[in-house]
Amino acid sequence: MPDPTNPTACLLIIGNEVLSGRTQDANIKFLATRLGEIGIPLREVRVIPDVAETIIATVNEVRARFDHVFTTGGIGPTHDDITSECVAAAFGVPWERHPEAWERMARYYAETRGGIAEFNPARQRMATMPRGAALIDNEISIAPGFTLGNVHVMAGVPRIMRSMFDSLAPRLAGGPPIVSVAVHAPGLPEGRIAEGLAAIQARYAALDLGSYPYYRSNGNGVAIVAKGSDPAAATAAIAEVTALMTRLGGTPIQGEPPT
Amino acid sequence: MPDPTNPTACLLIIGNEVLSGRTQDANIKFLATRLGEIGIPLREVRVIPDVAETIIATVNEVRARFDHVFTTGGIGPTHDDITSECVAAAFGVPWERHPEAWERMARYYAETRGGIAEFNPARQRMATMPRGAALIDNEISIAPGFTLGNVHVMAGVPRIMRSMFDSLAPRLAGGPPIVSVAVHAPGLPEGRIAEGLAAIQARYAALDLGSYPYYRSNGNGVAIVAKGSDPAAATAAIAEVTALMTRLGGTPIQGEPPT
Repeated sequence: MPDPTNPTACLLIIGNEVLSGRTQDANIKFLATRLGEIGIPLREVRVIPDVAETIIATVNEVRARFDHVFTTGGIGPTHDDITSECVAAAFGVPWERHPEAWERMARYYAETRGGIAEFNPARQRMATMPRGAALIDNEISIAPGFTLGNVHVMAGVPRIMRSMFDSLAPRLAGGPPIVSVAVHAPGLPEGRIAEGLAAIQARYAALDLGSYPYYRSNGNGVAIVAKGSDPAAATAAIAEVTALMTRLGGTPIQGEPPT
Repeated sequence: MPDPTNPTACLLIIGNEVLSGRTQDANIKFLATRLGEIGIPLREVRVIPDVAETIIATVNEVRARFDHVFTTGGIGPTHDDITSECVAAAFGVPWERHPEAWERMARYYAETRGGIAEFNPARQRMATMPRGAALIDNEISIAPGFTLGNVHVMAGVPRIMRSMFDSLAPRLAGGPPIVSVAVHAPGLPEGRIAEGLAAIQARYAALDLGSYPYYRSNGNGVAIVAKGSDPAAATAAIAEVTALMTRLGGTPIQGEPPT
């Protein structure tokens, strides 16, 4: 288990397109990695459909259980983009014109896109937010995300989500970074190392020791990854795993196997 | 919304490696697609850590809410593989040697792998299952998954998971397949089509009409996808969307945009 003093995060991916298989998720890995780096480890992900009751109930459940909730998806201009109004409903606050978001978008459509596109009612919905929302900048396509309480509402398009997270991250108070130390052993099956590995895990209770078999065209093996907020402990645990692999006849290599 | 007569599915991805960003999920899209084809649409995904209380509570919550629960991950031989015993705890049944799984694995290690690997206690855990488990074959690496009640327990390694799902799928009683019809319009921004699209969605309440902007090196645009269990309705709705795109000055192309 990561250090229990670290704040925790939950990611809500809102969108039928992931649940239907149309779209390959590209946001979990990015956010999981970045949140680990700033010491707010991701402890749960949910993918839910564009259904108002589901979004409202889920937001309320997870914002009570985790220190931070990040949502992606459902903040565009179309009828299936209902995340923003659902977050307002979850918090029990009005959903209303956000003066600064409105001004940014009106200026963008008047000046930058004048003649090509207009700030029509569909786009005005993207400047309509729960009362009290603090904007999250969007360097890619103007329409901002927002933070309300401990809920951070971002776009689902990966390029836009990443821009929003870059703008949001400096405002988040994290804990110690979660570090990762790995070793792998080509040809060594996971089932041989299991018993010795459990004994090492038992001595390093503050770390997560993960065991991941890999299957590559140039050979199979097992990778062991120690994760936690204590770099010295992670290094020491992986040194013990390395010695275990050698005792079992393996030839361990530091780090993850090449992809 | 998909046809309410379709059985529903929830996917539980069990594993710290997805939550830490080490591993890119490769199972959601595969299972979402295959479950749609057999008419058991995926309605929720959760990614949860290798923590017993979390697994037990989540299994019990979602097996009551969905017709089918599919789990991936946590059925290997190492200390962090605790899915099987947690499913037993969730159902309140003993976790015990499964005679057929045990016999398959003992034979495999004695005959096929004789001299290279042994059926040691770590591997014996993979033949230990909740009482009443029905095996799911594993053509890749022998150790079976299992079904208990409406919970289907599979491996997390994508190649093994797919083999298990292929073996399981014929036993699942699905509903009408979820079909998908799409059209896209290069150069047409999502914000222009939003209003007309909402009106079409309102006339086809049994379909999900999704609007997905795309950003490609050779140009941007918007794709509209109709999903549901009535192919004629999906085709008719997309014909209306096509006419709407043309009225707005777009040049719609049937199908999804090239990747």
